[in-house]
Amino acid sequence: MHLSRTPEELGSDPIHDLVSRLKQLPGIGERTATRLAMFLMGAPKEYLLGLAQTLEDVAERVHLCSVCCSYTLTDPCSICSDPRRDDQTICVVASVQEQTAVERTGVFQGRYHVLHGVLAPLDGIGPEDLRIQELIARMESRTVREVILALSPSVEGDATSLYLANLLKPLGVRVTRIASGIPMGSELEYTDALTLNKALTERRDL
Amino acid sequence: MHLSRTPEELGSDPIHDLVSRLKQLPGIGERTATRLAMFLMGAPKEYLLGLAQTLEDVAERVHLCSVCCSYTLTDPCSICSDPRRDDQTICVVASVQEQTAVERTGVFQGRYHVLHGVLAPLDGIGPEDLRIQELIARMESRTVREVILALSPSVEGDATSLYLANLLKPLGVRVTRIASGIPMGSELEYTDALTLNKALTERRDL
Repeated sequence: MHLSRTPEELGSDPIHDLVSRLKQLPGIGERTATRLAMFLMGAPKEYLLGLAQTLEDVAERVHLCSVCCSYTLTDPCSICSDPRRDDQTICVVASVQEQTAVERTGVFQGRYHVLHGVLAPLDGIGPEDLRIQELIARMESRTVREVILALSPSVEGDATSLYLANLLKPLGVRVTRIASGIPMGSELEYTDALTLNKALTERRDL
Repeated sequence: MHLSRTPEELGSDPIHDLVSRLKQLPGIGERTATRLAMFLMGAPKEYLLGLAQTLEDVAERVHLCSVCCSYTLTDPCSICSDPRRDDQTICVVASVQEQTAVERTGVFQGRYHVLHGVLAPLDGIGPEDLRIQELIARMESRTVREVILALSPSVEGDATSLYLANLLKPLGVRVTRIASGIPMGSELEYTDALTLNKALTERRDL
């Protein structure tokens, strides 16, 4: 991903600039960028200035929490500094979106750690590109008893989980991974073979 | 479309602000807005500040051309002020995107007029919402001989064309509409009935 542009590429034409900047957003191609730019040019001035101000605010005020590496305005973030949460459990997630998904369940009362990605050698994403050192550093306090790996059940998620388990277990911490199997409310008949296979091999005693 | 927000809705949280502002863009729902916001929070500070600056530039510097109503930095715009273009022909388009599409053909050497929409009574878009008064005003100089209506062949495009023809013809100007029919290179066999019907009724002598 190339987000930096040479000054030569940016002319004095804000219309052209807007399209080329919007094109750098993920999932936004030339067509969508042009459509958005046209909308923005017709949008009320207050909206444009408001969006510009918000982007500046995000640039200046949003940082990574020095503890859990989630996005935050304060450091440490509200979850890391909440005295009611359990210090003995850390839930490791790939992204802030997935952290939000776990938090929304209301079940988990421990702390989080955001990796900002998963291992993906084919995309050139190795351990040094993730917030793994920061996770290991959190083990030093000896208060953590369990690390729950809440990573998606995919090749990359599996590889990342295995990699982290190998790093964490020697530190004397329990490492678990969230269960994968048949989603609640779904029909066994229509479940894909891979999921059903996983659900069978990971069957539980009743 | 509601682009204005009450100050109460905007908190001091730029993360939340960013998502809610992005959600106001066309075709961007909650999910995409969140995804874009997460990307923006992880993007280099220079990109965010650059995008903010571009949005401010657009807000401050992009205006409607007082002649053709297209977006421009100068007034009149570069096309309206180009002495090599033909003053006797005006091509009427619904949007700046469609103006760009016509201009890209390189065939048209006259002037443009951007309506900023088409008549759509069901969506509450009437003649007063379009740049029709500005088009009529351009007939006063008596230099315009032909108005080419380059509107999409749809119910709204047809209605708008008819409406404009009824306004313009009494002013002594020739009003034409771009042809609709089988697109170049397409197979007759797979052409939809409506297009084929149009192509038959609008057949030309050879």
